[in-house]
Amino acid sequence: MSTWKEYLEDNESSYLDELCEFLRIPSISSLPEHANDVRQAAEWVADRLKTAGIEDVQVLATPGHPVVYGQWLHASGGPTVLIYGHFDTQPVDPIELWSQPPFEPVIKGDRLYARGASDDKGNMLAPILAVEALLKTRGNLPLNVKFFFEGQEEIGSPQLPDFISSHRELLACDLILSADGGQWAKDQPTLVVGRRGLCAVQIDLKSASQDVHSGTYGGTFLNPIHALARLIDSMRSPDGRIMVDGFYDQVRALSDAEREQIARIPYNENEYMNGLGVQQLFGEPGYTTYERAWIRPTLDVNGIWGGFQGEGIKTVIPSEAHAKITCRLVPDQEPDKIAERVAAHVEKHAPAGVSAAVQKLVGTADPYTIPLDHPGNQAARATLKELYGKEPYVTRMGGTIPVSGIFLKFFLKFLDAHMVNFAFGLNDENIHAPDEFFRISSFKRGLNAYCMMLERLSQQSV
Amino acid sequence: MSTWKEYLEDNESSYLDELCEFLRIPSISSLPEHANDVRQAAEWVADRLKTAGIEDVQVLATPGHPVVYGQWLHASGGPTVLIYGHFDTQPVDPIELWSQPPFEPVIKGDRLYARGASDDKGNMLAPILAVEALLKTRGNLPLNVKFFFEGQEEIGSPQLPDFISSHRELLACDLILSADGGQWAKDQPTLVVGRRGLCAVQIDLKSASQDVHSGTYGGTFLNPIHALARLIDSMRSPDGRIMVDGFYDQVRALSDAEREQIARIPYNENEYMNGLGVQQLFGEPGYTTYERAWIRPTLDVNGIWGGFQGEGIKTVIPSEAHAKITCRLVPDQEPDKIAERVAAHVEKHAPAGVSAAVQKLVGTADPYTIPLDHPGNQAARATLKELYGKEPYVTRMGGTIPVSGIFLKFFLKFLDAHMVNFAFGLNDENIHAPDEFFRISSFKRGLNAYCMMLERLSQQSV
Repeated sequence: MSTWKEYLEDNESSYLDELCEFLRIPSISSLPEHANDVRQAAEWVADRLKTAGIEDVQVLATPGHPVVYGQWLHASGGPTVLIYGHFDTQPVDPIELWSQPPFEPVIKGDRLYARGASDDKGNMLAPILAVEALLKTRGNLPLNVKFFFEGQEEIGSPQLPDFISSHRELLACDLILSADGGQWAKDQPTLVVGRRGLCAVQIDLKSASQDVHSGTYGGTFLNPIHALARLIDSMRSPDGRIMVDGFYDQVRALSDAEREQIARIPYNENEYMNGLGVQQLFGEPGYTTYERAWIRPTLDVNGIWGGFQGEGIKTVIPSEAHAKITCRLVPDQEPDKIAERVAAHVEKHAPAGVSAAVQKLVGTADPYTIPLDHPGNQAARATLKELYGKEPYVTRMGGTIPVSGIFLKFFLKFLDAHMVNFAFGLNDENIHAPDEFFRISSFKRGLNAYCMMLERLSQQSV
Repeated sequence: MSTWKEYLEDNESSYLDELCEFLRIPSISSLPEHANDVRQAAEWVADRLKTAGIEDVQVLATPGHPVVYGQWLHASGGPTVLIYGHFDTQPVDPIELWSQPPFEPVIKGDRLYARGASDDKGNMLAPILAVEALLKTRGNLPLNVKFFFEGQEEIGSPQLPDFISSHRELLACDLILSADGGQWAKDQPTLVVGRRGLCAVQIDLKSASQDVHSGTYGGTFLNPIHALARLIDSMRSPDGRIMVDGFYDQVRALSDAEREQIARIPYNENEYMNGLGVQQLFGEPGYTTYERAWIRPTLDVNGIWGGFQGEGIKTVIPSEAHAKITCRLVPDQEPDKIAERVAAHVEKHAPAGVSAAVQKLVGTADPYTIPLDHPGNQAARATLKELYGKEPYVTRMGGTIPVSGIFLKFFLKFLDAHMVNFAFGLNDENIHAPDEFFRISSFKRGLNAYCMMLERLSQQSV
């Protein structure tokens, strides 16, 4: 009988083919016209779990996109690990900047290009295949495993709080491993001890009852685009501080030791700028780049529109102008409270002459933290050290996995279960952007890592 | 033999049918995919001129959309009048705000709804049909008439300066009548003694080399939407003055008498606001609403875009943000110079951390004025007074007819010919906006007015 390592090697090429098949499903959760594709991705995952030998596999409905659940619970007396990931993807615009169609995977060297390759299909498929390798070679798993995959991560997991709350028994576990996330670099592992949260609003300004001719009326009433520009500009000081009243009130200051931990991580400003393609960085005074990205909250306009966007000119004063804003949040900011403060800012600062409305958008996430010395983290540390031959950095993530805050709320409180980052994406993989890719070497590493991690967890108390 | 008046009455219904046919051609000049429709509209106009009895009708090429020319030059020794109009239309977006398809004309009471109904197909068809009525009933015209219709007015007549310059002999005339424009109100005629000019630029800001994840990078570099908001806001003071250096340098102050002329025109602020659907007006301090619309220059963002505009959220920091800007200009501002000053402002004020480019857009127009006591204006005054039973107001127009500045440059300088507004659109007819319409009563009035005006002009020196 072969080892799981040999089994993984033997199946490398068919596993890659399967990942490509998964990536061909355009499961964009934010676009209603792709709802069936998200559903199809759920079915694909469920089938793959069954093939792997997972039991009681179910596609479970929520009021929005479905979730997929499966389990293998024959390690009597052993701990239970729940593995999390998501099978939905971001939209693809701006489509014209892709080098190939986003849902037609292309391999170039070590890179597999497709929307969702890194975030999160490549990462979430790894533990399924790792468990298959263990089952096929050992005949069993070293501990109890539950899989929980969702299809609404990219829209903020709006129906998951209710779903998790009402399925606590089904999902009960001792530890959660997140197959959504990543490592520091190709050769450098990381332990993630914090993630920022999120809230989202849309601002809608209205002026005249319809678009009017800029010659006839230009100069006599307030153009809503100018009003929106002023309003947006009022939200941040020129040096990068958020000017929304009370925005920072709930921010918990990090200890010197925690900031020292961040300062220990190597930082090369030129490399950072080159990665972004910018000539200059910009951010809140008094904080390093990593601190700005991980432990400080932000307010960013993700989209703005109003009036004519076609070729040439249209001499119109539009009746409306719009902006979508998300704020990245840190402990102990509460998403709803921050959204309300942004709304209050709009109400207070919207220039007279326009009517302003603020709608909260679906996409709330609580910030998340896990103690560095948590046994799950220590198991990850040992596994990653074995895999990379290096001690992991202790970092935080600027991004959100909405479910992590939900898990924290339900699982930590009721089950004392924490969530450990155990995924292998890298920062340069263009997630949420054109030409997203996943490294084939990372995919293979993920397969091995999950086998090693599950074996290690079975030997220690989590 | 019937009079032209009887002839017009007899043909009223078929003339309306013909206008509807003309309106069904979606001759949007700004959209390349409608170039053939603009061409088709030109052919339609040429055919209609021939049917009317106009001679030497030609569709003449320019490097862009064509022009249509025709003449009737048998009034030996009489003056020559050139009648101007345009057969292209504005785009139709936002299409969802139309009550019916924009190129399927619908009559509701006195209103004929369609894109281009008022601006300018209804207005420009009137003189063709009026001339037909004169020819069919008198057997001749009381003076020499040339028709000159263009297909690029809505994109700023970019090829017309060259065309007019190289066809001065063909277009030579004693007076130009513009069938593009309008009257003050259903029951109130107007003499237009000035029109604002135009220049147009697009601002393109770029930050990162591509869209990036707002969690990973949010807070560490400048979001180009925030930079654009700041830049746009820097262009106007909160009280409505344009803050672009040198913007007002060339503005010629109006005399007290000229301002007094404007002040004499009845103004009802509530009506004005109701027409726009706004609760409040806004504009440059020290000027009345009419002055702001007619004799003061503006800077308006006509369109803004960047990042995600779909449903829900996309947690992206876009790599680019864009704005289209037009300035309405007054004597003696020069369009190129003002565009350069806006570009200089962008260069000076674009926040560090973004790269900013400014492109001049096609759509330049010199401001235009005509002396109130010009014989052409006096003939219009007498004709309008006879038609409406009221003395016309003396007004200006905030909007641009690009060709008017071109005519001024070539015809006034070389031929001493001025352009007189002689059209019957009204301000509430949603030109450049959804649900554009033209009043059937205005169409009929235009037919009669052109017959009367041509007869009157033949009796006086122009």
